[in-house]
Amino acid sequence: MGDGVTDGRFHLNRRRLLAGGAVAVAAGATLSHSGIAQSAVPAEAVDRAVEPFHGWHQAGVATSPQAHALFIAVDLEPQPHRGPQETLAAVLRLWTSDAERLTQGTPALADTEPELAQRPARLTVTVGVGPRLFDRIGLGNRRPQAVADPPAFATDRLEPQWCGGDLLLQICADDPITVAHTSRVLLKNVRGMTRQRWRQKGFRQAAGSGAHSMRNLMGQVDGTANIVDEAGFDRHVWDDGDDQPWFAGGTTLVLRRIRAEMDTWDELDRTSKELSVGRRFDSGAPLTGSREDDVPDFDAAEGGIPVIPPNAHIALARPHSDDERFLRRPYNYDDAPPAGRITDSGLIFAAYQRDPAVQFTPVQRRLAAADALNEWITTIGSATFAILPGVEPGGYLGQTLLS
Amino acid sequence: MGDGVTDGRFHLNRRRLLAGGAVAVAAGATLSHSGIAQSAVPAEAVDRAVEPFHGWHQAGVATSPQAHALFIAVDLEPQPHRGPQETLAAVLRLWTSDAERLTQGTPALADTEPELAQRPARLTVTVGVGPRLFDRIGLGNRRPQAVADPPAFATDRLEPQWCGGDLLLQICADDPITVAHTSRVLLKNVRGMTRQRWRQKGFRQAAGSGAHSMRNLMGQVDGTANIVDEAGFDRHVWDDGDDQPWFAGGTTLVLRRIRAEMDTWDELDRTSKELSVGRRFDSGAPLTGSREDDVPDFDAAEGGIPVIPPNAHIALARPHSDDERFLRRPYNYDDAPPAGRITDSGLIFAAYQRDPAVQFTPVQRRLAAADALNEWITTIGSATFAILPGVEPGGYLGQTLLS
Ligand code: HEM
Ligand code: HEM
Repeated sequence: MGDGVTDGRFHLNRRRLLAGGAVAVAAGATLSHSGIAQSAVPAEAVDRAVEPFHGWHQAGVATSPQAHALFIAVDLEPQPHRGPQETLAAVLRLWTSDAERLTQGTPALADTEPELAQRPARLTVTVGVGPRLFDRIGLGNRRPQAVADPPAFATDRLEPQWCGGDLLLQICADDPITVAHTSRVLLKNVRGMTRQRWRQKGFRQAAGSGAHSMRNLMGQVDGTANIVDEAGFDRHVWDDGDDQPWFAGGTTLVLRRIRAEMDTWDELDRTSKELSVGRRFDSGAPLTGSREDDVPDFDAAEGGIPVIPPNAHIALARPHSDDERFLRRPYNYDDAPPAGRITDSGLIFAAYQRDPAVQFTPVQRRLAAADALNEWITTIGSATFAILPGVEPGGYLGQTLLS
Repeated sequence: MGDGVTDGRFHLNRRRLLAGGAVAVAAGATLSHSGIAQSAVPAEAVDRAVEPFHGWHQAGVATSPQAHALFIAVDLEPQPHRGPQETLAAVLRLWTSDAERLTQGTPALADTEPELAQRPARLTVTVGVGPRLFDRIGLGNRRPQAVADPPAFATDRLEPQWCGGDLLLQICADDPITVAHTSRVLLKNVRGMTRQRWRQKGFRQAAGSGAHSMRNLMGQVDGTANIVDEAGFDRHVWDDGDDQPWFAGGTTLVLRRIRAEMDTWDELDRTSKELSVGRRFDSGAPLTGSREDDVPDFDAAEGGIPVIPPNAHIALARPHSDDERFLRRPYNYDDAPPAGRITDSGLIFAAYQRDPAVQFTPVQRRLAAADALNEWITTIGSATFAILPGVEPGGYLGQTLLS
């Protein structure tokens, strides 16, 4: 993060307080006097809170996760009088213009529902480019090596309807109305130039609870071990431009749609559930500890049997070398189930990193081979995107790629 | 409302503060010192806030609308060894038991994700029975006359996938995780006895903004003229048992799914939009006033032309006699659009009343005939439910019907 902060969580709470302006700061201060966690900013202030748009990186990656997210993949439509590269530039200019206004609580140009723009609720708009688009726009030589789909994994059951895409719009906010309005503005302003491929709607717990890790719908505390500090982001998340100078400040997102097999999961007893993850469900603590942030002890054994099974999710998912770390920023989904089923829910698993081949892929390979959780989770979608570098005032997203 | 309160809005804020316990009260008090609206309860307290489950009426009708709603219609499945009436009783007993726990922040019996029950976030579970179910369970003579589908209207374009249903589950909470967990528990505990017919997911602005009317996705302030006081609820919403004694304390819900034709709506200029509704978009004030709560003057004219057109939505929707009033408790929806469209959004329009034939239907008939808004809205779903009377501790929902 380019603004000199060392602890991600504190940073984000502080930013939220600052963003809310004097009112939020006053209230936040009073609140901590009355003993409530600092993140408990009043909802009125949450409504008006703003995340910065401009910067070296796009917002929506290091940003403390908002309550609601909409991931939309679109494909570029061939245009009669314009090449694909010009079409892409037009789309990205429009999105930049809309996003720099909407994220700051200002209506888009010619916004037909300007009042819906007035509660930004920490809105972020994050734009990515799919690996196949580089060739299509005649810039195959500018695709960062890192921006490539991971290989197929044995446990994948990919459905084409949740895969791929030329462009990604990731829209996050603490208010679902803000997300809906923003998605409409962004999509209608590029109508005719794009065609929607898929959309995935996700949620975490309601705003103001940012200090906790979220719980996913399987009941697990999710988000304990993660990258939170600036050094970690610089080392593991943000591209430094060594491969493709235009990409400095960007990052690569691997987005997986992972269905939770809730019916069979619910048949499992508590102890087995905890063994499958390697953590307790009440506190999120590792089976070798008592608090969520205790460091798991993978060598601990009782009567010769490891306390955390070697095939527990965290035993396999944890980085086997420091290079393997990446940022997880997942959302729950809960959609209408197909006939005869009770639930269609799971995780929109979003992993941000410099290079999936070095970070996501080795971890996913270990998980595919042996993760105890595999029996209850099924990856049904996968898409990869180059999250474009941030933009300064006057510029547009993707400018370093296209100029 | 059975607890002696005269102003609905104040009541609900007060209840929320009380529900949050000492912490919320303390914070609420400090907040009003710092000049923030009283409803700005910190999000931490919103998470833990509880709505009462037991009472003369079910919660979820007079309750100040929560941020998220899930409406699920299910049909009863024929059972090999049980008649439909016994099946219904079994379903309603299970739902009562689950709802009385979950709404109070206590896991359901054998809840497989008990931690997800710990943030009730003002959860309400409201259960209704469709008009055709009475005959199916051999109790046709106990169907309240009021519980009948409204007639077809000229503007209806009903799609069977959004219509009807034996039973309704209306699940509302300020946290989407609470809604997802609750729906799963309730549905899986009646698995085999019910089959899902449709589900509609809706939202309003995020929690803590209860003092404002909501905005719908067309940008309008929605919810200004409504029933808010106890006398109004008693007169217009709650059944008094005169027709069917078992139904005293219940109400009848007409649930309409109304698509907003956003593409053409967005082409309309602001003045025409305001004329079509009869209210301003910025403040929600009537075109004859300056504040949201100003009373519209339907006789006002300028140069002989009425300021509020006679076919404006509010001119036709407003009660033409006091008998026509009903409670509106709508939610926005925003779903994945079909191929080639940008948006699939609109209103889940929920109208609660004693008798739709006297309240909803005459209003809808006027609207169908001439509402200026008709060009931009299309009713694609309709379902009617007897919202069962409330339940006291030890009883179960529907007990007065089934015993
Ligand atoms: C539905 C699918 C998944 C569920 C329910 C799930 C759940 C969890 C849970 C409960 C934890 C422990 C708490 C925490 O540190 O956040 C965790 C940790 C982790 N998971 Fe997953 N996970 C899923 C998929 C994945 C996938 C696909 C990957 C990567 C390929 C992954 C990588 C990780 C990593 C790296 C950690 C942290 C390990 C550590 O350093 O301790 N997870 N996951
Ligand atoms: C998508 C469809 C609809 C939209 C966007 C919409 C929008 C609005 C708006 C903006 C208002 C003014 C603010 C307020 O008092 O809440 C209003 C009022 C009202 N609407 Fe609708 N409405 C819709 C459908 C309906 C339907 C189907 C009915 C009933 C059949 C209805 C009945 C009413 C009533 C009774 C009022 C209050 C009128 C008064 O007493 O001033 N609306 N509506």
